[in-house]
Amino acid sequence: MGADNQQERLRNEGWIVGFVDGEGCFSVSIFKNPSMSLGWQVFPEFVVTQGERSLQALQVLQEFFGCGRIYINRRYDNHTENLYRYCVRSVEDLETKIVPFFKQNRLKTAKAQEFEKFVQVLSRIIERKHLTSEGLTEIRQIVQQLNSRSSESPETVRQASYQDEDTVRASGRPEEVG
Amino acid sequence: MGADNQQERLRNEGWIVGFVDGEGCFSVSIFKNPSMSLGWQVFPEFVVTQGERSLQALQVLQEFFGCGRIYINRRYDNHTENLYRYCVRSVEDLETKIVPFFKQNRLKTAKAQEFEKFVQVLSRIIERKHLTSEGLTEIRQIVQQLNSRSSESPETVRQASYQDEDTVRASGRPEEVG
Repeated sequence: MGADNQQERLRNEGWIVGFVDGEGCFSVSIFKNPSMSLGWQVFPEFVVTQGERSLQALQVLQEFFGCGRIYINRRYDNHTENLYRYCVRSVEDLETKIVPFFKQNRLKTAKAQEFEKFVQVLSRIIERKHLTSEGLTEIRQIVQQLNSRSSESPETVRQASYQDEDTVRASGRPEEVG
Repeated sequence: MGADNQQERLRNEGWIVGFVDGEGCFSVSIFKNPSMSLGWQVFPEFVVTQGERSLQALQVLQEFFGCGRIYINRRYDNHTENLYRYCVRSVEDLETKIVPFFKQNRLKTAKAQEFEKFVQVLSRIIERKHLTSEGLTEIRQIVQQLNSRSSESPETVRQASYQDEDTVRASGRPEEVG
């Protein structure tokens, strides 16, 4: 790797951390889902939301991590622009791409603590503890610390927010990235 | 500079850009001020706001730029934590420290356009055009594009937001930075 590329990579890594410190969200939702053995589904997600004019910044994230999708959220029609959400929902991608990056490149805001809780939940999912009622109770307790808003009524909040969501672009190299 | 320091510097510069892409604001307010010749004062400001738990991230900015102050905003008492604002208001600091950095290190979101407008206003202030009515009209037009909210009633908005603001820490090296 040439010196210029190396410099660009370091700057870009720094930018990713700063942007996620500002706009990122490590979220865990717990849905009612009758098809699951305990009746609940645990849903971890890494999300960054931007208005339409900053869609390109989400494409930078998608290209950098090589995973995730960008969704358009048309619910906010009283705003001047549509909102877009870069989401990584695959447990495998979270485990192998997102988490290792933020372990290597520490967040500087309170999101560092949010990330730690997120990792705790994710490791329990990987160990399949979320399928036992002890594990689920433990995850609920962590989620409560992680996100006080979503812990109030996560299933309502999440179901509403996905109703009007369209995939914009599948994972992979986006068409236009600056 | 050693290779490690150089790497750290590049990462840190990238982080600053990403964090400002997420949380920064290049704002221009126009106040009524009878002591000014035209009765109006033009007030450019670079601001980054965070909750108390992320105060350290603002101290990183303050140390990096070597200017600006951190204010506490106690108005938001129905929130779980106080808000802190890192602000650079000195035209000289904006001109010699903030603007050159973001010219060198381009923002990736729509804030890049906000920054361009901000630079346009700042250069007019430096040329003292804001003291002529033609210049002031021109600045008002740029400000309207820059920030539709603050252009509605800037003086009200800004006066309200400064009423309960205390300086937390003067410019310079803060006591604790991670």
